[in-house]
This record gives sequence, structure tokens and C-alpha cells, in this order.
Amino acid sequence: MDYAKLYTPIAEELPLVDQAIQEVGRVEFPWLSSLLRHVLSARGKRLRPVMTLLAGRCFAYDPERLVPMAASVELLHTATLVHDDTLDGAARRRGIPTVNQAWSSDVAVLFGDYLFAASGEMVSRTRNVRAMRLFAQTLMEVCNGEMAQHFAAYQPELTREEYFRRISKKTGALFALATESGAFLSAAPEPLVHQMKTYGHQLGIAFQIADDILDFAGDETTLGKPVGGDLAQGTLTLPVILLMERYPRSSPARDYLEHGRQPEDLERTIRAVCDPDLLAEAYRVAAGFSHEAAAALDPVPDSAARRCLLALAEYALSRRS
Amino acid sequence: MDYAKLYTPIAEELPLVDQAIQEVGRVEFPWLSSLLRHVLSARGKRLRPVMTLLAGRCFAYDPERLVPMAASVELLHTATLVHDDTLDGAARRRGIPTVNQAWSSDVAVLFGDYLFAASGEMVSRTRNVRAMRLFAQTLMEVCNGEMAQHFAAYQPELTREEYFRRISKKTGALFALATESGAFLSAAPEPLVHQMKTYGHQLGIAFQIADDILDFAGDETTLGKPVGGDLAQGTLTLPVILLMERYPRSSPARDYLEHGRQPEDLERTIRAVCDPDLLAEAYRVAAGFSHEAAAALDPVPDSAARRCLLALAEYALSRRS
Repeated sequence: MDYAKLYTPIAEELPLVDQAIQEVGRVEFPWLSSLLRHVLSARGKRLRPVMTLLAGRCFAYDPERLVPMAASVELLHTATLVHDDTLDGAARRRGIPTVNQAWSSDVAVLFGDYLFAASGEMVSRTRNVRAMRLFAQTLMEVCNGEMAQHFAAYQPELTREEYFRRISKKTGALFALATESGAFLSAAPEPLVHQMKTYGHQLGIAFQIADDILDFAGDETTLGKPVGGDLAQGTLTLPVILLMERYPRSSPARDYLEHGRQPEDLERTIRAVCDPDLLAEAYRVAAGFSHEAAAALDPVPDSAARRCLLALAEYALSRRS
Repeated sequence: MDYAKLYTPIAEELPLVDQAIQEVGRVEFPWLSSLLRHVLSARGKRLRPVMTLLAGRCFAYDPERLVPMAASVELLHTATLVHDDTLDGAARRRGIPTVNQAWSSDVAVLFGDYLFAASGEMVSRTRNVRAMRLFAQTLMEVCNGEMAQHFAAYQPELTREEYFRRISKKTGALFALATESGAFLSAAPEPLVHQMKTYGHQLGIAFQIADDILDFAGDETTLGKPVGGDLAQGTLTLPVILLMERYPRSSPARDYLEHGRQPEDLERTIRAVCDPDLLAEAYRVAAGFSHEAAAALDPVPDSAARRCLLALAEYALSRRS
């Protein structure tokens, strides 16, 4: 599937989002602007801004408010990545060195804070109290999810339900912010705002599961980071949980977690997780959430933008990076 | 001076601010609520909330909006302290162990993020776009100041002007947010909103200088943290800058910074800075800013609240912790 086709209905406005994000980089301090240019140069897929704009495009599209909203969601996402990478001690992200790697952990903490602030400033440009309030509530939810993940690190007892609850906060909430705000900033009727929120939330979960699968089964070069990184950081994700459900008594994953985290056990876990049957099962679970996302769009009137959102739900499962 | 007398005109509302802050601690996760209770238990002087409420009390006082505003400023301040302490590796704050000490640096980063989010959620309860926007802009400014401080660490060439610029961002901006928002949320005429902003900004600088003096000349037990901590972290403050201005060629401070940061040079610097003449000069500089703060209130109509703000400008210089 060609990702670029997914944003045809908003092709004119997406560059404005990029522009708004790049403008954040124009600041007086040379060291700050080099940090900003570094981080903002690694353009991701801009998935969240695309979702905000497409959600708005289904209703009374208002780019003047949707562009800063979309930019703020992307900046918020970038801020969380900067802190995540610092805590994980990750060396690379999107193919370039992380801030903690290129500068230091201390700089990355301060710079992540700055990006949180910049994302808050950006959302304030919508001049919409509801958007600003939802934005802050979402950040609380995301931090909650991050902390839940941290406190559950290396715990082999993590259940599917706990995993879903965690990624629902960590990723679902941010996707839901993207689509819900896109809808209400475009004067969507309340019941459809709710549907758009559900769409984003369920798609976020599907997307995170696909991400967690790629962490094991993806290609290091395409991903821009090493395979098996989540488990190495102690984060148990669906593929590992499925493996441990299949072999409750003994598995390389359990060996890794319970016997001093040996590199060879990590290697064995990666191989065991990459079993085609197990991966297929994990993708089926992701597909379930993706289908729920698509179903949430049932009451939304047909339009090119709605068809793109439906295609995006498919894309979440098919992507390879 | 009795600090409690400074908030007589707002004595009824200050406990409501405390209540709002404590309510942030009521969350579902046991580990999160224990973190919150830990951090929020160390009640500071609530100086910033007092300033917001007093600034509002000078005009059409509206506690319904001022209480969340005041609480959000305090939460924002607390969030920055949690990250500061983490970067400094500080062990104690307000007499209790820091989050990084009691849990870990990773937890402190995530928890600081959560507090930033909670402060943003709190300000959104004002339902006032201007307050929310100023709040985000202030956080950008504060982060900017923190980064400037970080990148200037251990640089013996720091000038007074650079120091003022840095603390103007780091502390002045947050104090200005407290008083400016208090004024406009209470329908103050624009010129007086501006005066209140100036008052807060200049008082913040005076307050920070007094803080920086206490870091050398204060009592460890009263302060709840070790003496000379700023310089040990590489942060040059006014007392050290004055010392180096007096002895441009050679001083224990320069020895400390240029010759491998020996503990005995730090001790010698602390003794040299505590010279009564030098401390008096530092206090004169602080008094200059404090007087500018007081002068900014000239056009504000007389009231009990205004008299308290004037007394607060004196208090900034007299406090010992």
C-alpha cells in the first residue's frame, strides 16, 4: 500500500504542519536550534498529523485550527520519544543518533521538557479550550502508561489485559487525541466525535501491536534500531506474552527474565517469537483492534477522507517500518 | 517578618489551592499515588500561589479561576524541581529524599513529565485561553533558562548579564506568570496587568538571587540541602560572579573550576563568598530588583492585597530558607 495515497485529501495542508513544526526550530540559542534541527530533521511518517487532518476533513474542515492541532500532536509524540530514548539508553531513532547519544541524558531530559512546552504552546494556537484541555489530559494518560510500563519491567507475570491497558494509555490515548480533536475542531456532531475518538484509540492499539511485532520480526536497517530492543529494556509486549502463554512452564523469554538476562536467551527468544504461527496470531490480535477502528467509522458519512482513514486501518497492519 | 501575615487577604482561598494540589495525588495506581503523596507532602512556602491570589485580590477577585491557576503554577514549579534534582543528582529537597533518590532517575523523569501534564490539566480548569497559552509559553522560557544554565556549566567566563538573563527565564518567567495571570483572570485593566507582570518578573529575579546567596550563606538544616551545592553542580551564581569580578586573576572559585574541581577549593570558595562585604553587595543587587518590583505596583490602587505584595518584595530579601 502506498502511504502517500492515504493523505491525498489533505495533501495541501500536510506541508503546513511540517512548516509549523520546523518553525519551532527557529530560536535564538545556537545550541537549542541545533538540537531542534537534529530532532525535527528525522521526519517520521507524520501519522498522527495525517489522522488529525483526515478526521477533520470528514466534517467542516478548518485548516487554520487543524494545522496547529496536528503539529502539536506530532511535537508531543516527539517529546515522549526523546524521553523514552533517554530512559532506554537508545542510541538511534529514525536512523539518526538520539539526543541522549549525540549530547547527553541530561540535555535530553531538558530538551524533552522544552518540546513538551512547545507542543503545549502549539495547541494553544487553536485558541480552543476543549483542545487544550484534552491535550493535557492525554499527556497525563500517556505518562501514566509510560510509568506503568516502567514499573512492570522484567515482570514475567504480565497478562494480555495488563498489556492492552498499558498500550491503550501509551499509544491509544495519543491517537485518540489526534482524531477526536480533528473532529470537534471541525464541528462534527458529538456522537461522531465519539466515534472518531474510538477509531483513533483502537487504531492506536493496533498500531502499537504491529510496532511491537516489528521490534522482533522487522529489519534492523528499515527500522533504524536493533531488533529485540523492547525485551532488552524489560518491556514485555504481545509477541513475548503469546510465547509465554503457549509455553507457560518454560520458554527462552522466561529464561531471559529469570536467569540474569543473558544475551543468548534474548537471541533464543527472538527466534522463538519469529515462529510464523506465533506472528500470525499476534497479527490477528492487531487486526481485531484495526477492525474495531474501521467499524467505528460506520456512522461517519462517506467521503474521500473517510476512505483514507479506513485504508489507514489496513496500513497499520501492513507496514514494515 | 511573619510570612503568614503576607497572605491574610487570601487566607480563605490558600487552603483551596492546597486541596486542588492534593487532589492530583488521588489516582488509581498505587505506585503513582505514593510518588505524588511523597512529593506533594513536602509543602513549600506556596509563594507562587500566594502571589497569584494576591495579584487577583487587587482587582475583581475570582477564586473559581484563581485557585486552579495558582495550583497549576505550583505544580509546574514542583515538576521543574523534580527534573532539576534528577539532573543534579540531588539527594534531598525540602528536607525529604528526592524522587531520584527514593526511587530512581528514570522514575523521576517520568514522574516529572506526569507533573507537567497535571499542571497543564490544572490550568485548563480556568477555561481561559490566555492563561493556558501564557502557561505554555512560560514553560518554554523556563526550559530555555534551564538549558542555558546547563550549557554554561563550569564556564568561569559567565558575566553578570548572562546570569541575569538566565535567572530571568528560569525564575522570573514563572513568577511573572503567577502575577500576570492573577491580574488578567481578575479583569485588571491591561496596563495594570503589565505592571503586575513586571512586579512578578523583577521579584522572581530578586528571589533567585537571595536563593543563590543562601546556597552559600544559609544553614544546611534550615535549607534542607547542602551548602555550596550550586557551584558543585557547575552552576555559577551571583556570589561567585562577584567574587571573580573582585579577583579577576585568581580566586578559589577559579581554582575550583579550572583545576579539576577539588573539594578543598569548593570549601575555600564557600568561605571566600561568605565575606560580609561580598554578601552585602550581593544583597544590594537583589534589593535593586526587589525595589523595581515594588515600584511596578505604584499605579495599582491601594488595598490590603497590594500592601502584602509590597511586603513580599521585602520578604524575598529577608528570608533564611
